[in-house]
Amino acid sequence: VPSESDLHRSIFARSAGLSARFPRILLGPGDDCAAIHAHANPSRPLFLTVDQLVEGRHFAPIPRTSIDLIARKAIARSVSDIAAMAGSPAFALATGLLPPNCPYADELCERLAHWALHFRCPLIGGDIASSSADAPCPLVLTTTLIGDAHPARGPVTRSGAQRGDDVYVTGRLGNSFASGRHLTFEPRVREAIALADALGPDLHAMLDISDGLGRDAARIAEASHFGIALEAAAVPLHADVSDPLRALSDGEDYELLFTARAGAPVPHQLPASLTGAPPTPVTRIGRVVEHAAGPRCTVLLPDGRVLDASAMGWEHP
Amino acid sequence: VPSESDLHRSIFARSAGLSARFPRILLGPGDDCAAIHAHANPSRPLFLTVDQLVEGRHFAPIPRTSIDLIARKAIARSVSDIAAMAGSPAFALATGLLPPNCPYADELCERLAHWALHFRCPLIGGDIASSSADAPCPLVLTTTLIGDAHPARGPVTRSGAQRGDDVYVTGRLGNSFASGRHLTFEPRVREAIALADALGPDLHAMLDISDGLGRDAARIAEASHFGIALEAAAVPLHADVSDPLRALSDGEDYELLFTARAGAPVPHQLPASLTGAPPTPVTRIGRVVEHAAGPRCTVLLPDGRVLDASAMGWEHP
Repeated sequence: VPSESDLHRSIFARSAGLSARFPRILLGPGDDCAAIHAHANPSRPLFLTVDQLVEGRHFAPIPRTSIDLIARKAIARSVSDIAAMAGSPAFALATGLLPPNCPYADELCERLAHWALHFRCPLIGGDIASSSADAPCPLVLTTTLIGDAHPARGPVTRSGAQRGDDVYVTGRLGNSFASGRHLTFEPRVREAIALADALGPDLHAMLDISDGLGRDAARIAEASHFGIALEAAAVPLHADVSDPLRALSDGEDYELLFTARAGAPVPHQLPASLTGAPPTPVTRIGRVVEHAAGPRCTVLLPDGRVLDASAMGWEHP
Repeated sequence: VPSESDLHRSIFARSAGLSARFPRILLGPGDDCAAIHAHANPSRPLFLTVDQLVEGRHFAPIPRTSIDLIARKAIARSVSDIAAMAGSPAFALATGLLPPNCPYADELCERLAHWALHFRCPLIGGDIASSSADAPCPLVLTTTLIGDAHPARGPVTRSGAQRGDDVYVTGRLGNSFASGRHLTFEPRVREAIALADALGPDLHAMLDISDGLGRDAARIAEASHFGIALEAAAVPLHADVSDPLRALSDGEDYELLFTARAGAPVPHQLPASLTGAPPTPVTRIGRVVEHAAGPRCTVLLPDGRVLDASAMGWEHP
């Protein structure tokens, strides 16, 4: 089991040469802080987001989940937050609270660095600690992501939806956790940029679906002071999902949910973030409506019933 | 016990109006990412650092340590990393992994926001999660700090020490953890900026003392490819410390350790970061020397013996 000093040495060794490949990195790991050049273009805002990934909560305990896929999810989930603003990932920092005498510490650091590079946000800093034997913890990771706003469209927020907007979703939904897709999803970076390129100011609001389509649609509705009416029959499902209500509530899809001006030329498919992958479908699933009272997001079932979708999805305890 | 949604609502409510007070904040908490304007001056690099704070390791378990002081340390320790580069804190993000049914969650979030504002790095994002009852964790916090480089001097790294430099320390050292000073220290932001102002390019290398003077001095020495020779009798001690070797090894002082060109006009005291506080003393404690082999940092005792100081201090297990 390597000491933290050993780990830090491996981390520094792996990050050697990062500045040569990424000229915006002035200082990578090894000092009190990393240092970056903010921008080629100073009018482009920077995005910042941080997320936690906890063993037993966000992934099945090791060794049921591999170190590689844990590291991938830690990075990919934060990359998806950058995509949700139509941004481009630029840099990452990560922390790990390791269980006592952790045998996989070096592998974990290596895989975090690997996936950060893969998603084009090199790891420029971090912190490793161990929980003590008398108060052992599951593995806890955090990822801080720094990204650049879309140069023309700027930040695409949750609060920009307008009355009469059409509501769209990328890809297919449902059963992400049980199927393991929550570990292997592709953050929709390229798709989001293509939407901002194609729609410009007609791309009104966007987020990535983490807690369930119903709950996340309600977030856009609430932030925008409108309602959202979804049609269950329109929701695109993965092959292993039959009930659209499952897709509304499962969460962890990391697909883009967005609203656009009615009649805007929304592409039916987008170039995929993964090189060589088939294009990503874009499906219209509902509409932004007036909201006076009642649920922020409703769903129309094929039998004509209308349910409150706002509370479908994962409520963190 | 509030749900995570309740907590998030309190967090958003507390952060309302942040953009009006801090015009560089485009978007605070509430969206997938925060968004900032990088700089008034695009040639000024940004600093990024992230640290973990673990109950039972970095502070005595609750309620022996108050929520207020835990939140203070979480922010202050990362602010000290920005000071160590001669930077100015600008923004913060924080995460909390809370124990199950945590009664102090809202207080913790409120105190984190308070101390972030106090240190002039408003909290623009974060993430709250709870550990599960079947795998309970101590409280785990992380703080990501974003800062601005000194406009004239730029980043002051660990690697800039030069042969013959004098080695200095701010404040007084030793017994930080046992005395409780590790919870109440003032990060040396203003002092570091005053040093960069006064010394410019003659300020060669700097860090903040976290793991012990001996170990941290060895870090400057190693990064700069030199050695450092300290004099025990010169090390400024707190009133409750009598043995200078304790001060070399205790750590958690969060004082600045820096090297400057021999003969440079290093001030004997600096304007304190805390308004109204007495000035912060600056003491010469050693010299940068040639290093061929052996310890990176040595300490000369009053009786003439020379010890290896590189290994004095906190080695994380």
